[in-house]
Amino acid sequence: MGEPTSSNSLSYRDAGVDIAAAEAALDASKQAIRRSHGPRVLADVGSFGGLFSAMDLGEKPVLVASADGVGTKIRIASAIQRFDTVGRCLVQHCINDILVQGAEPLFFLDYIGVGKLDAAMVAAGVTGVANACADHGVALLGGETAEMPGVYPQGEFDLVGTIVGVVERDYVIDGSAVRPGDKLLGLPSVGLHTNGYSLARRIVEERMGIAYTDPFPGDTRSAADVLLDPHLCYLETLRPFLRHPGLHAMAHITGGGVPGNLPRVLHGYGAEVSRQSVPKQNVFEQLCAAGDVDREESWKAFNMGVGMILVVTPDAEQDIQNRLRDQGEDVFAMGQISAEVEGVVWLD
Amino acid sequence: MGEPTSSNSLSYRDAGVDIAAAEAALDASKQAIRRSHGPRVLADVGSFGGLFSAMDLGEKPVLVASADGVGTKIRIASAIQRFDTVGRCLVQHCINDILVQGAEPLFFLDYIGVGKLDAAMVAAGVTGVANACADHGVALLGGETAEMPGVYPQGEFDLVGTIVGVVERDYVIDGSAVRPGDKLLGLPSVGLHTNGYSLARRIVEERMGIAYTDPFPGDTRSAADVLLDPHLCYLETLRPFLRHPGLHAMAHITGGGVPGNLPRVLHGYGAEVSRQSVPKQNVFEQLCAAGDVDREESWKAFNMGVGMILVVTPDAEQDIQNRLRDQGEDVFAMGQISAEVEGVVWLD
Repeated sequence: MGEPTSSNSLSYRDAGVDIAAAEAALDASKQAIRRSHGPRVLADVGSFGGLFSAMDLGEKPVLVASADGVGTKIRIASAIQRFDTVGRCLVQHCINDILVQGAEPLFFLDYIGVGKLDAAMVAAGVTGVANACADHGVALLGGETAEMPGVYPQGEFDLVGTIVGVVERDYVIDGSAVRPGDKLLGLPSVGLHTNGYSLARRIVEERMGIAYTDPFPGDTRSAADVLLDPHLCYLETLRPFLRHPGLHAMAHITGGGVPGNLPRVLHGYGAEVSRQSVPKQNVFEQLCAAGDVDREESWKAFNMGVGMILVVTPDAEQDIQNRLRDQGEDVFAMGQISAEVEGVVWLD
Repeated sequence: MGEPTSSNSLSYRDAGVDIAAAEAALDASKQAIRRSHGPRVLADVGSFGGLFSAMDLGEKPVLVASADGVGTKIRIASAIQRFDTVGRCLVQHCINDILVQGAEPLFFLDYIGVGKLDAAMVAAGVTGVANACADHGVALLGGETAEMPGVYPQGEFDLVGTIVGVVERDYVIDGSAVRPGDKLLGLPSVGLHTNGYSLARRIVEERMGIAYTDPFPGDTRSAADVLLDPHLCYLETLRPFLRHPGLHAMAHITGGGVPGNLPRVLHGYGAEVSRQSVPKQNVFEQLCAAGDVDREESWKAFNMGVGMILVVTPDAEQDIQNRLRDQGEDVFAMGQISAEVEGVVWLD
């Protein structure tokens, strides 16, 4: 389509936008997207909007929705041109964000913004998102790739997702049941998940002075491999507990760390938290040492080894801990709720 | 919080991330967000995930979801530091995207990515989103602001949204009813809506050589005012027709123009389209002349004056046209469906 244009004439492609490349990328990831579709998905890839049957979602179904990005973790993916794992991080991060309110995920939509569209890169990113969705029973219902020359510099991109899940109204977990004396159980993260990357990258690049393909200090893997470890998904681990009467709240530890996230679900109570109880991980030890990062600061910038915190009744603590251990989880007791303190107070 | 750090120590703020500024921006827009909340919204601003009651959404409710950005229109907003109208564009664009499948919007989530967080800018952007949501009865259920130094250059940002709506399964509009002989009715756009901005900006900056604060050729308003005209929302206009048996399909004319969008809803049939039938708008005339944009190219890069196309039965054409005129709409007949052609064939 389109007649030959004169040399003075400006086309959309001249202005840095290649619609054909966008369509090629979509084709390559369509198969992966279809694999994520269950029987509730009513329209195929490429419709204006994705269709999802909401029949029989429950007695009093409540939809829970959350939007997020993967932050500057994406710059490491850009630096080494590996685009699949950040897609997985995005999905698993979003699943956790609604899981803490008791919700199981239904569907997901993604958005990729780039300066210059690279079909292989976009296809890898979308395929990473689609595969993670399929693994957790989430339908990748729609998405958008936007080529925005100027907004994103050459080689940079952003990856954004929105998740929608469902929870029965009587089983919404909102922290309103939290009481002083409730216990805190932590579940380990695997590395940084998706926060603290602006600081981590600066430490690696300026203080460690290593390339992302170099071995990470104290590790046999490269810095890129260590820093791109996927954000853990806690859905399968915690699904058996979502209606447990002893589970009062959950906090997903993301940007802001334990002090930035745990108080959001405590309905005004404070928490006394033991940092020593959290198993140390080499990646945090090395980053904090090389960056000379203040201890208080490190616990706000990084998850420091705890990806999810459960607030449970004293009565239920042992039962939940035992069942999590039986599932193979390295759960650890890390403190309790208190009416005497505000926010998070460190015990050690 | 946090002890004084030594001069060698790196903090999150040193690395370009200011969590306090992000929280200040959220506070400023919270009021606007709350105004968008109806009785179905169960949790307040700041929860991990937004809660939306899905009880009694219909007999056989189908959720319709779509994600999108506002493209490089945002660069004009950045250039003149006006952040509210692009928020409105985003919401109204997304509403139209699910409206074409027959859906009414329920809730919306936004994402803002920036290089350096400016609290006033983010608050204006989110408030623009929230006000547009409130105007159309959509709950702004959640959102995320991500400060990503390096991914976005100084002064640049991206604004992304996801909408979820609902349609009764028997009233999904998917184009499966489209038949040869069906008529095309066009509804006017107001300017570029949210596509064609990479080309438009290049023409304004390189060919017209004017500043965005200068008057736009043939107009008393500035180039910024003309180019930031909000993307029209067709929800209220078209709501009375969503269950009209003579309405077979709708196409929202965005990136790709008429030839890129209309065929997506025609189930394999083609369309014969009259370009002369579309009322001319000064903004397209001026951009195409100054950029010496090829006519074929211009109809792919811009909406050229048509924001929405309805595919209707010949029997219903007059009734729908009359009722739209009674509502004050400048509807125009612009062609018909054909089994003899592929894609869009121009009649003139």
